[in-house]
Amino acid sequence: MSKGITPWEFELEHVDYARIIQEFGLQPMTPELLKRVRTPHRLFKRNLVFAHRDFGRILDAQESGEQFVILTGMMPSGKFHFGHKLIADLMAWYQGQGVMLYIPVSDIEAHVIRGIELEACREITVNEYILNYLALGVDLVSKEKCCLYSQWRNDLVRNFSFKAASKITLSQMHAMYGFSNSDNMGKIFFPFIDAADILHPQLPERGGVKPVLVPVGVDQDIHLRLSRDLAPRFGMIKPSSIYTKMMSGLQGPGSKMSSSKPETAIFLTDSTEAAREKLKDAFTGGRETIQEQKQKGGQPEKCVVYEFLLFHFEDELLESTYNRCTSGDLVCGECKAAVSDRISKFLIEIQRKREEAKLLLPKVFENQPL
Amino acid sequence: MSKGITPWEFELEHVDYARIIQEFGLQPMTPELLKRVRTPHRLFKRNLVFAHRDFGRILDAQESGEQFVILTGMMPSGKFHFGHKLIADLMAWYQGQGVMLYIPVSDIEAHVIRGIELEACREITVNEYILNYLALGVDLVSKEKCCLYSQWRNDLVRNFSFKAASKITLSQMHAMYGFSNSDNMGKIFFPFIDAADILHPQLPERGGVKPVLVPVGVDQDIHLRLSRDLAPRFGMIKPSSIYTKMMSGLQGPGSKMSSSKPETAIFLTDSTEAAREKLKDAFTGGRETIQEQKQKGGQPEKCVVYEFLLFHFEDELLESTYNRCTSGDLVCGECKAAVSDRISKFLIEIQRKREEAKLLLPKVFENQPL
Repeated sequence: MSKGITPWEFELEHVDYARIIQEFGLQPMTPELLKRVRTPHRLFKRNLVFAHRDFGRILDAQESGEQFVILTGMMPSGKFHFGHKLIADLMAWYQGQGVMLYIPVSDIEAHVIRGIELEACREITVNEYILNYLALGVDLVSKEKCCLYSQWRNDLVRNFSFKAASKITLSQMHAMYGFSNSDNMGKIFFPFIDAADILHPQLPERGGVKPVLVPVGVDQDIHLRLSRDLAPRFGMIKPSSIYTKMMSGLQGPGSKMSSSKPETAIFLTDSTEAAREKLKDAFTGGRETIQEQKQKGGQPEKCVVYEFLLFHFEDELLESTYNRCTSGDLVCGECKAAVSDRISKFLIEIQRKREEAKLLLPKVFENQPL
Repeated sequence: MSKGITPWEFELEHVDYARIIQEFGLQPMTPELLKRVRTPHRLFKRNLVFAHRDFGRILDAQESGEQFVILTGMMPSGKFHFGHKLIADLMAWYQGQGVMLYIPVSDIEAHVIRGIELEACREITVNEYILNYLALGVDLVSKEKCCLYSQWRNDLVRNFSFKAASKITLSQMHAMYGFSNSDNMGKIFFPFIDAADILHPQLPERGGVKPVLVPVGVDQDIHLRLSRDLAPRFGMIKPSSIYTKMMSGLQGPGSKMSSSKPETAIFLTDSTEAAREKLKDAFTGGRETIQEQKQKGGQPEKCVVYEFLLFHFEDELLESTYNRCTSGDLVCGECKAAVSDRISKFLIEIQRKREEAKLLLPKVFENQPL
C-alpha cells in the first residue's frame, strides 16, 4: 500500500528524502511555504518539491513585488528526456509569471571535462535542449524574459569566476569538494564557473543585487553551497534553491534515467512506437499474479509507469489511475496501454511544436550569446 | 676594472647569471647561436641576452623561411620605464623582420590578483603601454602584424586555459609552483591563463602549429615551463624563450626598477627635468675621490648610469663613455650630464611620437580585441 491517502500526498518509496535533507543540510518543504506559492505548478501541488534553501526569500520577493530571477543550467551531453522536461515546465511556469529566466549552457564543462566535441555540444544544445525548451513553452527569444548563454561566450561569468576564485583558498576547496591531488586542475577550477553562473545575475551589469532561485539536483548542491558562501563577500544575496524529486529510470524505482542510455528513459524525440516499446518493458508496481493484484491492488509507489502520470500529466488521469490501481480494478497491461496513449499524444504534439520552434531559432541566435 | 675588454663583452657584476642558468635549467646563449641572428639587435650584440630555451628552433625557422611568432605580455600595473622599453625595442625589431607579434594584456591578473581597478588597468594599458609601444615603433594597428588583446576578451585564450588545466593534476601544480593550501584558487588557476597566452598562437584558429619565441624574465619562467610541458599534449611545438639581463634600479646595481616607485626608475612619461633630477641621485661606479678616479678609472660594470647607455643608446656614445670612464678621463658629474642630455633628447622625441600615436588609437581599438 502506498503511504499517502490521496495521490497528492503520495510518497515515492525508493528514496529516503528525509535522509537527503539531513545529509545535505537542506530545509524540508513545508505546507506553510507551499500555501504561499501562487497558482502552484503541479510540482508544488503534488509534493514533488521536497526541500529548499531560503525559498521563503523568493516568496517574500514575489509577495512584495520585488524583482527576482530563476536560473537553471543545460548540460549538453545527451538526449532530452522526461526528467529534463520537468525542469523546463517549471521554467515556463515561472516565466509566465513574469520572472526573468537565466539558462547557462554548460558547454565548457561538457567539452573539457566530459570530452564531448564542440560541434556535438552545439548540436545537442540546439536540437535537444533549445528546440524542446521552445516547444515546451519557454520563451528563449526575448532578451527581456530570458538570458540563454554559452559559458564559452559569457565574459561576465568567466571574469567573475576569477574574482570568485580569488576569495577561496585551496584548503577550503579541499574541505568542500574533497578533491584529491590526482584531480586535474580543470575539474578543480570548474566550481567557480558554476558559482559565477549562479551569482552573475546580481552583478551591476545585470541590474544589481536581487534574489535568485535555482532549481537544482542534490548532486549539484555543492555549487549552490559555494555560491552561498561567496555571495556575502560580493555584497550579494545568498541564492535560494529548490530540490525536486527525481523520476526513476524505466528499470525500476530508484534506477537512473540516463540521456545516453535509450533503454532507461523516454526521450522527447522518440517516436510513439519507440516510446510504447520502452514502456512495455518498464518496471511496474504490479503484483505477482493478476489474482493477487485484484485482491490487494497495485503499488503505484513502486511503479515507474505511474511516475509518468505523477510528474507530468493531468490530475484526472492521475487520480483515476491511482484509484483504479490501488483498488485492484486496473491491471498493468491495460494501464501501460493507457499511459502509452497519453505519452504518444504528448510526443506527437511536442514534435509538431519542435517543427514550429525551428522557425524561431534565427531569433534565438540573434538575441542570445550562444 | 670591468671583466670584459670592450663594451661588447661587458659583464654586469651584480648578478650571477651562471647561477641563474643552472638554477632555472636554462641554456646559456652561445657565440654560435648569436652568429646566426640576422642583423642583430643591440641586445644580442651587447651580450644582454644571456640565456634561452630552444632559441635554435627559432633560428632554424628564420633560416628556412618557416613562419614563427613572438609573444610578450603587458602587465598594466604601473608606469612604463626603460626596462619595459627594452622589450618594446626588441618587439619592434622582430616585427620589422616580418615576425607576427602577440601581446596579451594581463588585465585579469592585474585586476583579480593585484587588485587594480578595471578603469585603472584600462588607463595604464592605453596611456603607458599602448602609446609608448606605438611611439617606439611597434605596429599595433595592423591585424596582420600584431595581435594585441585583453585577457578579459580573448575567448580562444580563456577557453584553451580550461583545456590546458584539465591536463595537469593538482599534485603536479604543487610540485611546479609550490602552492600552499592557503593560496587562493585564483592564484592557483592563473598559470593556465599564462600558458594559454603562450600556446594559443599554435591553435588551428591562429593558423596552426608553429614556433613561438617568448622573451621572458626568469621570474616568469615557470609559466614557460608549464607551457612547454603542455605543448606536446596538444601536438604543439614547445615554445622557445630568451632571457635578457635586467636593468638595475637607480639606487644601485642589482636594485629593482619599479613602475610604482618613481625614485627607482626613469619613466618614459617623465619630464626632462624630472629625469635629470633622478639621474643626479643615481648610484654610479665612481671612486671615492676624483684623484682615485683619475688614477684607477671608473667602474662601468657597477654603474647604473652606464647601464642606460649599455641597454639603450648608440654604439659611439657607449664606446667613448666606456673608454673615457675606464681610463680616468671622465668624472661622474660630467658623465651624468651627458647621459641626461641623451635621455632628455630621447624623452622629447618620444613625447612627440606619443602625441602622434594618439591619432592611431581609434584604429588600434577597431582592430584589436581590447
